[in-house]
Amino acid sequence: MSSARVYIAVIGSGQCDGSVARTAREAGRLIAESGAVLICGGLSGVMDAAAEGAKEAGGLTVGILPSHNRAGASRHLDIALPSGIGEARNALIVRAADALIAVCGEYGTLSEIAFALKTGKPVIGLNTWELSKNGWKDDGIIEAKTPEEAVKKALKAVTVI
Amino acid sequence: MSSARVYIAVIGSGQCDGSVARTAREAGRLIAESGAVLICGGLSGVMDAAAEGAKEAGGLTVGILPSHNRAGASRHLDIALPSGIGEARNALIVRAADALIAVCGEYGTLSEIAFALKTGKPVIGLNTWELSKNGWKDDGIIEAKTPEEAVKKALKAVTVI
Amino acid sequence: MSSARVYIAVIGSGQCDGSVARTAREAGRLIAESGAVLICGGLSGVMDAAAEGAKEAGGLTVGILPSHNRAGASRHLDIALPSGIGEARNALIVRAADALIAVCGEYGTLSEIAFALKTGKPVIGLNTWELSKNGWKDDGIIEAKTPEEAVKKALKAVTVI
Amino acid sequence: MSSARVYIAVIGSGQCDGSVARTAREAGRLIAESGAVLICGGLSGVMDAAAEGAKEAGGLTVGILPSHNRAGASRHLDIALPSGIGEARNALIVRAADALIAVCGEYGTLSEIAFALKTGKPVIGLNTWELSKNGWKDDGIIEAKTPEEAVKKALKAVTVI
Repeated sequence: MSSARVYIAVIGSGQCDGSVARTAREAGRLIAESGAVLICGGLSGVMDAAAEGAKEAGGLTVGILPSHNRAGASRHLDIALPSGIGEARNALIVRAADALIAVCGEYGTLSEIAFALKTGKPVIGLNTWELSKNGWKDDGIIEAKTPEEAVKKALKAVTVI
Repeated sequence: MSSARVYIAVIGSGQCDGSVARTAREAGRLIAESGAVLICGGLSGVMDAAAEGAKEAGGLTVGILPSHNRAGASRHLDIALPSGIGEARNALIVRAADALIAVCGEYGTLSEIAFALKTGKPVIGLNTWELSKNGWKDDGIIEAKTPEEAVKKALKAVTVI
Repeated sequence: MSSARVYIAVIGSGQCDGSVARTAREAGRLIAESGAVLICGGLSGVMDAAAEGAKEAGGLTVGILPSHNRAGASRHLDIALPSGIGEARNALIVRAADALIAVCGEYGTLSEIAFALKTGKPVIGLNTWELSKNGWKDDGIIEAKTPEEAVKKALKAVTVI
Repeated sequence: MSSARVYIAVIGSGQCDGSVARTAREAGRLIAESGAVLICGGLSGVMDAAAEGAKEAGGLTVGILPSHNRAGASRHLDIALPSGIGEARNALIVRAADALIAVCGEYGTLSEIAFALKTGKPVIGLNTWELSKNGWKDDGIIEAKTPEEAVKKALKAVTVI
């Protein structure tokens, strides 16, 4: 059962405006339509929107929470997992996902992007961080312009693996 | 959605004989019938048997794995989550559960029992560790004789909370 | 430098009476006299007493704290490391130590004992938990009657490895 | 004792050329001269060089390792702590430090930078990642041109706190 499943994380900030939320929700919906499990950080903002979208399409949604209980968890989660390890739970989100889609995002999202790239997981970026070193752009993040393109690229990246 | 759900973990060894596996499977089945989510360590033995039982009853099964990938995961998991933190994932199993049912078990199970008692989570024991200090039995573990009794006591303990 | 060093943890409760504190302090002192590094949970009670004893003998003391800052840390630590992962830091204490000496202790100490036994680290017990299964005493914990005996057995167990 | 101490981490790659190693070593030396504890990831490259520099100045050096044992640890560590949690140990390095100095670095270093900025720890960058969003440079990382400037800025940032 689990072996055939694909797990895609949507990562982003706990606070976001309506436009960003719509993007995350659409990404969540498309992930669920593909049959993949949605992984997220389980809180508000992008995490909540992605879970809401995935549930609209009848998908399975998992949130990995920083705190030791479920306070503040999105109500669109099938599975809400308190970790009790604070921000270090970002590493667990990456471990749980086969690929990640970053929607905008702040420093927490950046930590997930970095962990993912470090451990060889594909990261698709929707208007997210741009990385460079010595004035040269780093091409680790696969860019996308729309949720459709992001989910398509995430699924393709996972299949290639 | 998640707020109303109850999460019960079944913990025990990665290797066990047929009788122990039947007990774990029956516990898993009863957990699923109650509508609760089954949490386990995601590997073989008691973990696999509990997940199998829960799936027989159409339940939702989650395994939190020690390694950084899904190799060795039970095929009866809806959600298989690699943690990459080794045996420290035992703390995550406890964090994820509202109550735990220990079926026999070795030292790893003992670590989960101890974490659970430390953090105030009810632990129901089925032929598991017996704890004492200074010659006095510790009564932290709630004893049960059958899977039925164990699941009933776990659900009751969670409801009281 | 580090390769030749031995790391011994003293584990026990954050609250303890004077007699228990004296035992922990004496264990800490003897660990430092042997040249080993003292590892502990970095808080009060047994942890603080062991660190105090080790510093009396000029030893090096390390505390691995559950919280994300140093509030509440023992003042007898050379190195105080906030982990931010809560009680899961007990697994880190075990990982950091070559052998552990348990002085009395509650459920948190039990989780460390269990983790240590699970991962093959020697555990010496001073009036600590007694473990049994099916009415049979488990002999995983090496018993000692005095701090001297405990430290001697810990050092011997590490050397054998 | 611990309360008065400052902990500065030097973060960077496990492999680096001689020029980068010299920078890390000089940073480590200056950290030790200031009386601060050096925190690092405990392995080779920048981590090893920083520890070497700190030991040259008689400082105290701590390495937090990803694996469950001390294999591969720098020989310039006073305290080598296996964590057994893999790359998630990057979060522990950030928790342990009051400020961080990033010397060049790859994705692992980026994860530490992001964690630090997320949790409000000052990050000084020496020829490290450049971050931007929507074409605008993020100014979270405090830039420095030399190890002297980096250590001075790190100490100042910590003192302000």
